[in-house]
Amino acid sequence: MIDSVKYENGKLYIIDQTKLPTILEVLEIDDIKDCWDAIKQLKVRGAPAIGIAAAYGVVLGTRNADESSFEGFYTEFKKASEYLASSRPTAVNLFWALERMDRTVLENKALAVKEIKELLEKEAILIHEEDAETCRRIGENGLEVLKDGMTVLTHCNAGRLATAKYGTALAPIYVGKERGINIKVFADETRPLLQGARLTAFELQEAGVDVTLITDNMAAMVMSKGWIDAVIVGCDRVAANGDTANKIGTYGVALLAKAHNIPFYIAGPLSTIDLNTLTGKDIPIEEREPSEIINGFGKQTAPTDIKVFNPAFDVTPNELITGIITEKGIARPPYNVSLKELFDK
Amino acid sequence: MIDSVKYENGKLYIIDQTKLPTILEVLEIDDIKDCWDAIKQLKVRGAPAIGIAAAYGVVLGTRNADESSFEGFYTEFKKASEYLASSRPTAVNLFWALERMDRTVLENKALAVKEIKELLEKEAILIHEEDAETCRRIGENGLEVLKDGMTVLTHCNAGRLATAKYGTALAPIYVGKERGINIKVFADETRPLLQGARLTAFELQEAGVDVTLITDNMAAMVMSKGWIDAVIVGCDRVAANGDTANKIGTYGVALLAKAHNIPFYIAGPLSTIDLNTLTGKDIPIEEREPSEIINGFGKQTAPTDIKVFNPAFDVTPNELITGIITEKGIARPPYNVSLKELFDK
Repeated sequence: MIDSVKYENGKLYIIDQTKLPTILEVLEIDDIKDCWDAIKQLKVRGAPAIGIAAAYGVVLGTRNADESSFEGFYTEFKKASEYLASSRPTAVNLFWALERMDRTVLENKALAVKEIKELLEKEAILIHEEDAETCRRIGENGLEVLKDGMTVLTHCNAGRLATAKYGTALAPIYVGKERGINIKVFADETRPLLQGARLTAFELQEAGVDVTLITDNMAAMVMSKGWIDAVIVGCDRVAANGDTANKIGTYGVALLAKAHNIPFYIAGPLSTIDLNTLTGKDIPIEEREPSEIINGFGKQTAPTDIKVFNPAFDVTPNELITGIITEKGIARPPYNVSLKELFDK
Repeated sequence: MIDSVKYENGKLYIIDQTKLPTILEVLEIDDIKDCWDAIKQLKVRGAPAIGIAAAYGVVLGTRNADESSFEGFYTEFKKASEYLASSRPTAVNLFWALERMDRTVLENKALAVKEIKELLEKEAILIHEEDAETCRRIGENGLEVLKDGMTVLTHCNAGRLATAKYGTALAPIYVGKERGINIKVFADETRPLLQGARLTAFELQEAGVDVTLITDNMAAMVMSKGWIDAVIVGCDRVAANGDTANKIGTYGVALLAKAHNIPFYIAGPLSTIDLNTLTGKDIPIEEREPSEIINGFGKQTAPTDIKVFNPAFDVTPNELITGIITEKGIARPPYNVSLKELFDK
C-alpha cells in the first residue's frame, strides 16, 4: 500500500483521502498553502498524519525564507507555523509537531539559517519515522487486551491512512495479522465524512482483514447481539484527566459499549496526550459546514437552508474509557496519575 | 401540504418519498404490482401509511377478480393479500390492514361479490380516515408530557408523510403548533436511507417548526449539552411486553437517552401494537441490500464488495421506554398490563 504521507526530493506527497475509496490519487505538494489546504480539507487527516504533514509544511513554508539574519528567518518561520496552526483546532498533534519544529529552531539559533533549515527538514523526517515506530508499539501493546478470533468495533479511521504506518486504533489488528493473530472488525461508516466507510473499510479490506461495514446507528444492535469483544478508537486530543476528543460519535459509542459491558479503549501516541489541557471541557471543538450533512456526496439529501449542527468531534469522559493504549503501555484509571507516569517512563 | 397517500376515482396517489426533499413527485397507481413496488422500495413508508397503501392495494388487486363465485373471488383475494404481505416483514400495520380487509370479505360472504368489492373499497377508505383521527389523538395525548419551549429529539420519520395526517411521533408537535404550543425538534438524519434528513426535516421545515438536523452519531453530544427534554420516535411493531421494533438506530438512541436521564417515548396507533407478538425476540427484522450503505448517496462511498450488515430495524427493550403514546392514552410500565388495558378501553 502507498504511504498516506511521503517526503521525497524536497516534495510532500499525500494520498488525497477525500477521493477514496474510488480514486487513489497522490497529490504532489511543494507549497505551504497547498499543505494548509490539504489539512483543512481533510485530504490528509488523522491526528498523527496531520502532525507529520504540518512538520513538512513548515519545511516547505520556510525553504525560501530570508537567510541574512536569524531574526528575519524566525519571523518568517513563526508566520508559517501560525498559518499551519490555523488549519484545524482540535488535533493536538498539529501543535505538538509545530512545537518540535519551533524547538529545533530555537535550540540551534547560533547556527547559520541555512543549517537551521536543514535541521528543520531532518526534524520533520524524524517526526515521520518515529510515528511508524510509535504505531507499531501501540499495536503490540494493544494486543495485550485482544486474542485471536476476537471482534473489535471501531469508529472513524485511525488506521495506516491516519498515520505513517499501522495506524493507532487499527495497529493491534495489523501487528496481530503479522503474527498470525486474526481479529475481525466492524467499522462504523462515520458520518458525515464517512471515514469509516471510505478509509477504514478500504484499508482493512486491502490488507485482507475480515471487516464488516455498518452505519453508525447500527452499533448498538451489533453490540446487543454479542458480536463485539472490544471497542478501539483513535483520538485527536487526550486531556490530562483522560477525557478524550475524537471524531463525532465516539462518545455515543462509548456509552453504548458501557451499556453492553464491552471494554472501550482509546489508542494514540503520547503526542496526542496534552497534559496542559486539564479536562475535556478545555478542548476546542471544531464545527464544520452544514453542506457536509446536507450535500455530503454530490447529492442533496436534506432541504436547502435547513438548520444544521455539525461538530467534528465530541469528548468522551474518562469514566467511560477502559484504557488508553500508547506506545509506552496502556494507561488505566485514574488517568491523571497513569498518563503522567507514561510520560515519565 | 399534499397528502402522502390519496385515493380518488379508484386510483391511488402517493408521494414518492424516495425523491424528497428535492423532487416532490406524486405517483398514480392503479395496479397491485405498482403498489407492492411502492411499499417494497419505500416510495410509501411509515407503518401507518404502509397499512393504508396495502388496503388500497387489495382494492386495486381484486377489482377485476372473478365475480361468478365467492370461492373463486376469495382465492384471488387471498393471492392479492399474500402478495402485498410479502412486501415488508416488520411493520405490523401492513398485516393489520390486510386482516381488516380479510374480515370484511368473510363477514360479507353471503353478499354478491360485486357488493363485497364495494365494501372492500369502503373499508380501505375507512382505514385511511381513521388514521388521521388516530394521529390527532396521539398528538393530544403526547402533549401531556410536553410543554411550550421544550425540545424533542426524533429518529427516522414518523410524521405526516408516514401517516394519513399529523404523524405519530411528530403529532404532538403539529397538534401543539395548532394550539400555540411551540416545540423545537432535533432530527437524526437516519442512515442509511436518510428519512430524518429527507422527510422529517422537510415536513417540519415546511410546517414552520424550528428543526435542527444532525447526523445519527451526534445525538449523544446534543443530549450531553442538555438541549433535549424528551425523545419521541414512531414504531413499526410493539410486542405485548412493550419491546418495540422501529427504524435501525432507535435502540441506540434509547440507551443514550437513558444515560442522560432523558425520557424516551414511543408513539403509535394501537394498530402497531401486536399482542400476538409476545416479546421483541419474536419480531422478524428485515435486512436490506448492501447497496443502501455502499452506494446510498448516488455515489460510491465504500469499497466494492465490502461486507455489510444492513438491518432495517432494531428492537428497543421495554425497560428503556418511558411511555407508549397511543390514541387511547399513554401506556406506562409494566406494559404487559397497560397495553392490554388500552385495548379494553
